[in-house]
Amino acid sequence: MPKQLSYHFFTMNGTSPNYLGMWRHPEDRAVQHNDVDLWLDLARTAERACVDSIFIADLAGQQGPFAAGYDKVAERSINFPVCDPAALVAAMLTVTKDLGFVWTSSIIQYHPFTFARNISTLDHLSKGRVGWNIVTSYLENSYRNVGFPELTEHDERYRWAEEYLEVVYKLWEGSWEDGAIVADAARSVFADPSKIHRINHVGERYSVEGPHLAEPSPQRTPVLFQAGASDTGRAFAARNAEGIFVMAETPAAAPAVVKDIRDRLVAAGRRPDDAKIIQGISFVVGSTEEEAQRKAAELEECLDTEAAMVQSSGVFGIDLSDADPDLRLSTLVEEGRGSRGMIKFFVDSHPKGDRATVRDLEQYVTTRFRVVGSPETIADEVGRWAESGIDGLNIIQWTMPGSYVDFADHIAPVLQERGLMQRQYAPGTLREKLFADRGARLTEPHPADKYREMFAQRETAEIAG
Amino acid sequence: MPKQLSYHFFTMNGTSPNYLGMWRHPEDRAVQHNDVDLWLDLARTAERACVDSIFIADLAGQQGPFAAGYDKVAERSINFPVCDPAALVAAMLTVTKDLGFVWTSSIIQYHPFTFARNISTLDHLSKGRVGWNIVTSYLENSYRNVGFPELTEHDERYRWAEEYLEVVYKLWEGSWEDGAIVADAARSVFADPSKIHRINHVGERYSVEGPHLAEPSPQRTPVLFQAGASDTGRAFAARNAEGIFVMAETPAAAPAVVKDIRDRLVAAGRRPDDAKIIQGISFVVGSTEEEAQRKAAELEECLDTEAAMVQSSGVFGIDLSDADPDLRLSTLVEEGRGSRGMIKFFVDSHPKGDRATVRDLEQYVTTRFRVVGSPETIADEVGRWAESGIDGLNIIQWTMPGSYVDFADHIAPVLQERGLMQRQYAPGTLREKLFADRGARLTEPHPADKYREMFAQRETAEIAG
Repeated sequence: MPKQLSYHFFTMNGTSPNYLGMWRHPEDRAVQHNDVDLWLDLARTAERACVDSIFIADLAGQQGPFAAGYDKVAERSINFPVCDPAALVAAMLTVTKDLGFVWTSSIIQYHPFTFARNISTLDHLSKGRVGWNIVTSYLENSYRNVGFPELTEHDERYRWAEEYLEVVYKLWEGSWEDGAIVADAARSVFADPSKIHRINHVGERYSVEGPHLAEPSPQRTPVLFQAGASDTGRAFAARNAEGIFVMAETPAAAPAVVKDIRDRLVAAGRRPDDAKIIQGISFVVGSTEEEAQRKAAELEECLDTEAAMVQSSGVFGIDLSDADPDLRLSTLVEEGRGSRGMIKFFVDSHPKGDRATVRDLEQYVTTRFRVVGSPETIADEVGRWAESGIDGLNIIQWTMPGSYVDFADHIAPVLQERGLMQRQYAPGTLREKLFADRGARLTEPHPADKYREMFAQRETAEIAG
Repeated sequence: MPKQLSYHFFTMNGTSPNYLGMWRHPEDRAVQHNDVDLWLDLARTAERACVDSIFIADLAGQQGPFAAGYDKVAERSINFPVCDPAALVAAMLTVTKDLGFVWTSSIIQYHPFTFARNISTLDHLSKGRVGWNIVTSYLENSYRNVGFPELTEHDERYRWAEEYLEVVYKLWEGSWEDGAIVADAARSVFADPSKIHRINHVGERYSVEGPHLAEPSPQRTPVLFQAGASDTGRAFAARNAEGIFVMAETPAAAPAVVKDIRDRLVAAGRRPDDAKIIQGISFVVGSTEEEAQRKAAELEECLDTEAAMVQSSGVFGIDLSDADPDLRLSTLVEEGRGSRGMIKFFVDSHPKGDRATVRDLEQYVTTRFRVVGSPETIADEVGRWAESGIDGLNIIQWTMPGSYVDFADHIAPVLQERGLMQRQYAPGTLREKLFADRGARLTEPHPADKYREMFAQRETAEIAG
């Protein structure tokens, strides 16, 4: 029996989510991303295919400031404009029953008290189908939009994220004990005040009194995702994440990535399978190999390599738009230029390693992770990924919603036939669907668990004292 | 021809929005407020009745800290728990075409950069049907939830709100010029960068670089509502609001309230009809007077007067739960106890004036604004309100969704027959529906208008210089 993978549609509430330039493709409808029907249809398509979740990425600012300033960002639609993902989730949950929703929210966008309630509300409305992709913003403009003069230093961002998580764990897990809601009309007792706690968090960045304003939702803490690539990021993910997005170069390269993550999970006191490892991928499908190749060539014509290099310059923190194509990226690391962690991560995970050049990066940001072929060819490749040790695939769109309709119509049925994909949803919350035989809520050894009884115990102790 | 009023359903994403204690009523479903179907049905009911909007109030913290601390708040469900209203809006817009959505968001809950994008997203998805009720939080716990040691002083809160508005006006109105989006695939130009501007706001509380991450939505600025009762609050509303919630004691008392607001609008350089004045009201309807009275008595049995006094203590900033029922509230003002502005406002607007007592307040927070009777009796009373100079009614629920189903089934048809209520929606956005013959966007003399060309002009000036 092959390993059954989970599947996720990767998108963004904007005109140009991933493969830059695709907004120019005649079939792409991402420019109409403000039309709610586009999303309701996407949600129905995903659920029809038994896809596990729609994942909506986000940015809190503009890519840049490299390569012709910010002008190119607007002109070429480089992940810009980009609107709120959570509103889409609230809309899409109304037309689905089982589909999960995961979205990105940066610690700099929302105060954790407000954010925690937003998540609880959506977890309630969806009956426990939401997940949060935890990010710390890496763009200077994101920080300048919310009052910071500059980008916060990389490791400091993760310390910030740890405190942010501490606050939301306290609110989600600790503030309301199970059984706090009594709802006894005859006795006029809606809730038992002794089971609802202020959290009185006082930390480096936040002071939060509480209690959480929302009742405990089905999952309490949403399913936690993370995509950190740096060492600090991976360690953070190992401590907290239940889903980790990775970008292994090939199925052959995946086992090393997988092993690194499983080792880190164990080092963090968790079980090696406590986080699902989800690989990015894209598909171009045709009824024959020829048709698929024709389609791929047609899509490639719309690829905007210049825009992609502007985006990469932002991610790598250095202007690469005019760089020598033969420049080895490892020399940037040696010279201490740009965001060394990100560049080093790219170099380390690239098959060419230290010899990877700007030209290789160009290829990376355009056509990497693309599988082209008939449904059977694609299923063969997915089979190789399934054997590589990863747990799921995050499917990146070429066109919206074309790539996803293609997946549902042509690829999913073959994957299901081969046992690589579920034919029906497991019951329960998103957490229960992703992790068989676990409950709806996070449990020990996940760090959130220790916040569950934290305030109850404290008060008991106080009374005893 | 009688004056046609606008109608709004006033609710909250919580177990106990307004008439406290109603969660104990066998027909009330507010305790199930986390069930999205409750809201989708409510939205359909509202649209079937041709109601102008659903208005969702919100709190950023617990009522209090007076009267038995916060315990009563949980035990009696005093506006607690309370979840995010915006998520409901995103869900409800999927099943409606014309209904408007207005919700409360406090300036302390969201950073204006994030908030502006959330609003733009929902204005897009709803095709221009959203409104924002601007509030500054008055509860100590709300401030302590987001890092402030105590309640910010009343007038300072409004200064804060003015800067908040300045930021969001700049983002909504100024950041993107009309015509910025080109979407010319052949030329590879999605947007014209010269028409998209950083706002570079630097103020007392906020530094925001921009640009706005969302494309301009149909209304750009949502329809702005406000309910300030103090002198500062009224002045703020006169400068900015397009809908002002009032609580006149009777139709006879309304003209003075209406005149005050119209005068203030003119004093602020706006037209007297630039803001709709919307009065709070509730209905208990029966097919006969007797049936209605029976129903009212049954509802009254569920009223939790003690809870209502805890709530009032929070609003008035002083513990009134054990106060002498005959204590004149005006003495509190004289003695400088509690939130003088709020108490003074109550005293001034009460028919008994200076002689209004704690007992009168008790009556106010329980059954005031209640109209009981047959559909015809209720329509008579609405007719008196229509003659009083107000523009709309904000209908407060007794039970959820019972009060609103009753309104749609029994009251709206009679109001429509009498010409007191629209039979069909006007075309266009919420702003166009509420203000006939005006556009979708705010225009001069509203202060938002001056931000429209602000950045474009500046750049032109720079070039000229």
